[in-house]
Amino acid sequence: MSHTETSHSLGSIVERFGGELIGDRNISITQVAPLDLAQPWHLSFLSQPKYRSQLETTKAGAVILGRESRDLTALPRIVCNDPYVYFARVSAFLNPVALPPPGAHPSAVIATSAQIPASATIGAHVFIGEQVVIGERTVVGSGCCLGEGVAIGEACFLHPRVVIYPRCVIGDKVTLQSGVVIGSDGFGIAMDGGHWLKIPQIGRVIIGNDVEIGANTTVDRGAMGDTVIEDGVKLDNLIQVGHNVRIGAHTAIAGCVGIAGSTKIGRYCRIGGAAMISGHLQIADNVTISGATGVGKTITKAGTYTSAYPFEPHNVWLKNAVQLRHLHELAQKVRNLEQQSKKSKRKTK
Amino acid sequence: MSHTETSHSLGSIVERFGGELIGDRNISITQVAPLDLAQPWHLSFLSQPKYRSQLETTKAGAVILGRESRDLTALPRIVCNDPYVYFARVSAFLNPVALPPPGAHPSAVIATSAQIPASATIGAHVFIGEQVVIGERTVVGSGCCLGEGVAIGEACFLHPRVVIYPRCVIGDKVTLQSGVVIGSDGFGIAMDGGHWLKIPQIGRVIIGNDVEIGANTTVDRGAMGDTVIEDGVKLDNLIQVGHNVRIGAHTAIAGCVGIAGSTKIGRYCRIGGAAMISGHLQIADNVTISGATGVGKTITKAGTYTSAYPFEPHNVWLKNAVQLRHLHELAQKVRNLEQQSKKSKRKTK
Amino acid sequence: MSHTETSHSLGSIVERFGGELIGDRNISITQVAPLDLAQPWHLSFLSQPKYRSQLETTKAGAVILGRESRDLTALPRIVCNDPYVYFARVSAFLNPVALPPPGAHPSAVIATSAQIPASATIGAHVFIGEQVVIGERTVVGSGCCLGEGVAIGEACFLHPRVVIYPRCVIGDKVTLQSGVVIGSDGFGIAMDGGHWLKIPQIGRVIIGNDVEIGANTTVDRGAMGDTVIEDGVKLDNLIQVGHNVRIGAHTAIAGCVGIAGSTKIGRYCRIGGAAMISGHLQIADNVTISGATGVGKTITKAGTYTSAYPFEPHNVWLKNAVQLRHLHELAQKVRNLEQQSKKSKRKTK
Repeated sequence: MSHTETSHSLGSIVERFGGELIGDRNISITQVAPLDLAQPWHLSFLSQPKYRSQLETTKAGAVILGRESRDLTALPRIVCNDPYVYFARVSAFLNPVALPPPGAHPSAVIATSAQIPASATIGAHVFIGEQVVIGERTVVGSGCCLGEGVAIGEACFLHPRVVIYPRCVIGDKVTLQSGVVIGSDGFGIAMDGGHWLKIPQIGRVIIGNDVEIGANTTVDRGAMGDTVIEDGVKLDNLIQVGHNVRIGAHTAIAGCVGIAGSTKIGRYCRIGGAAMISGHLQIADNVTISGATGVGKTITKAGTYTSAYPFEPHNVWLKNAVQLRHLHELAQKVRNLEQQSKKSKRKTK
Repeated sequence: MSHTETSHSLGSIVERFGGELIGDRNISITQVAPLDLAQPWHLSFLSQPKYRSQLETTKAGAVILGRESRDLTALPRIVCNDPYVYFARVSAFLNPVALPPPGAHPSAVIATSAQIPASATIGAHVFIGEQVVIGERTVVGSGCCLGEGVAIGEACFLHPRVVIYPRCVIGDKVTLQSGVVIGSDGFGIAMDGGHWLKIPQIGRVIIGNDVEIGANTTVDRGAMGDTVIEDGVKLDNLIQVGHNVRIGAHTAIAGCVGIAGSTKIGRYCRIGGAAMISGHLQIADNVTISGATGVGKTITKAGTYTSAYPFEPHNVWLKNAVQLRHLHELAQKVRNLEQQSKKSKRKTK
Repeated sequence: MSHTETSHSLGSIVERFGGELIGDRNISITQVAPLDLAQPWHLSFLSQPKYRSQLETTKAGAVILGRESRDLTALPRIVCNDPYVYFARVSAFLNPVALPPPGAHPSAVIATSAQIPASATIGAHVFIGEQVVIGERTVVGSGCCLGEGVAIGEACFLHPRVVIYPRCVIGDKVTLQSGVVIGSDGFGIAMDGGHWLKIPQIGRVIIGNDVEIGANTTVDRGAMGDTVIEDGVKLDNLIQVGHNVRIGAHTAIAGCVGIAGSTKIGRYCRIGGAAMISGHLQIADNVTISGATGVGKTITKAGTYTSAYPFEPHNVWLKNAVQLRHLHELAQKVRNLEQQSKKSKRKTK
């Protein structure tokens, strides 16, 4: 989390990451920063036209620009194809994840049958159940709880207070933010003579490699088969993933989204915040769902889909929303008018 | 969570659970499975017509069918009134909840005045405050925290990292998934000369028997009276229940729902995912609220209620949503046209 | 959480908090209660006209009324300008927060470089990292986890199982309910040749004084600059605050709200439950957002804004929602009719 503050010359950055350098290659960079906050020791970037005016006033030592913006400033600059990706790479280089020293804290409770390599870090007050297997260099933060038979790959980072229920399987290089719950029982109930019967949730959660899951997000275990999150999926905070959902590789989902049971989402989808996806649906690859959109039907074609009701000043909304309750009648009235209009045309001919 | 894999003959299952057996009664069943994943040692079921095609290709050893579907397959089968309920019963029989051995883990911190029977299980790093009372055979998972004066009934199962605030009362056979927070302060504030005054939240949460609450769901304590969740209620993940809400018996609520303060929900209601219910409302018994529906008024009659905006390809949505902002004017235009039409009819008569 | 039950005369309450006393000043009050639950030893209040009928049947020993309601009852009463604020003050007086005794529980794990005053309380199974600084009289509940370099002010109350990531800064008199996560990584990713690159989240979360944050709410750290929550902000449960968001002083936000990255919300705003606010927006001071409203554009003027789709019985909704998909065409038809109507008028002239 903390970051090194060693400095790098602009020239050495371009040698490492490519791009065209315009200006003094000896400028010394210690960190990245946005245009409005940058100081002379910062490397900044312009990725959206709306921040162009900040380019004129920034104090950054240098900036990363796309080819179309190469002449927008006289500042030392790196010109490249995708300034946001370039910035991401430089930032990852300047801010490596600080790993805690390996070893298990004495307050951790670890079952004797668990397999934990010497390179792993097990934090304070962690609980690790029987038959758990943890990969090399994986960090299990303070207060995490791993149920019986959980398997976690290499180089994972579990922040404090993550819970993984029994038998779930996590790939390599997976990051779980605090409060994440993996493998809780899905919502499976059957109404039987006035009482709900619980359906045992005997499946697992299977998570691929390079997955990140945000704070307090929940992923339910499968009812019978498994809930699956494929490689490279990125989930933001406070998302609910129902039982037997499958999320295709490299799909990114913003905060507060709900995905109901058994829905299959394709690869490379992008789902906006607070979208709500009903159960038992199929979403094709490369589908973009706008924020706050409710998806109640299968989507078979790539593209962008939306259902947001536009917001307005309350009084305007009131006048319009009242009409919504009579939209069917309004359409009927228009049909009547059209018929009368046809008739009267015939008459006047 | 893990399950026995002893096998049962189809005949012994029908003896235990009823139904009409068609086919070899000696077929050996070890587990339930959905049609598409089933193997010869699995009992499967058909409860929705949309999965009928899977009946032709399933490898299941036997299937559970409704009376109307009895002749849809030549497989060994159990014919009954409600195949989903039948399946639920068989699955519960084949997959009994695996209880950890009784006793308190030495790392648990338990107040001396707490009453905990020898049959209860207290996990690692649990904190139990003064005057807490726990019933027979109740399991308190690793990292749970029970505040002063909490009372929990018999045969409850608290998964890891549940928090129950002081003085809350939990019935028998209640299951709380990980990350659940019961009894946090409600959102009670009064604006006083430019500052919010906090209103002490001095009520409790009272939870009945046979309730299940999903991962990371929060239930606030009452501001003065109590927040009440009646017997048999089932709550999914990431639900917010505001202070002084009452949820009637056997109501089931899907994930991501919010219920604002002081709303009373009836018995046997079904509330879809991401529905949002305003405060100080009454919802009658047997009301169904569709997913993503906002409820801003009291509902006095049983029935299904909906407010979802239909999703569309983004470009189509744009064209329609723009008109929404002028719906009031559109209705006015139609009224004008109707009046002109009447006038012109009179003229042409 | 528990409350004293010492009694106070009505007269002594009016001496302390002002207002006009009508009736017996010796009546003895031990607690506040709502009109419908109040007993003779309770002080109740009327703040909304909809509860007026309860004034006739209440058993309260005395009531707090606004000036316009002074003659609605013969009960002993306190007449004042704002009965809800008056009630809030009396309740805070009768129900002071019960602080646990100072000191650190022996099961807590505290880094030697952490600075913790003798007046602070550190609960069981707490983890406190290197260089953490905690103010006087602050309570850190059981199972909390404070990362390296966290700074917390005076008289804060962290309920059990709060996580604060490294380097975040919390002001004085801040209350964090259970399950809150402060400083988790924001959702910063860049698509690079088929894979998502993670952008290091190197900013912090800065929280002012007198802030309260509800159960299981998450506040992400800034990507580069900080995420800021100003003085007096009140957040309910299950809210997501994205990276680099700024929430202005004394803004109150109800449960299940999502605020996407880099959005700046003004002072004294009120945001209803389940509202969803897109990223990179500005919301002016004194803006009210209705519940379940999606905000996709900057709001520059104070006022109330709404986008909720009105709910209806499902069959009615179906008929109307179908028309929504053709609203653009409907508007076109009306335009056509208007043009025909104009033409025919000209003809008939």
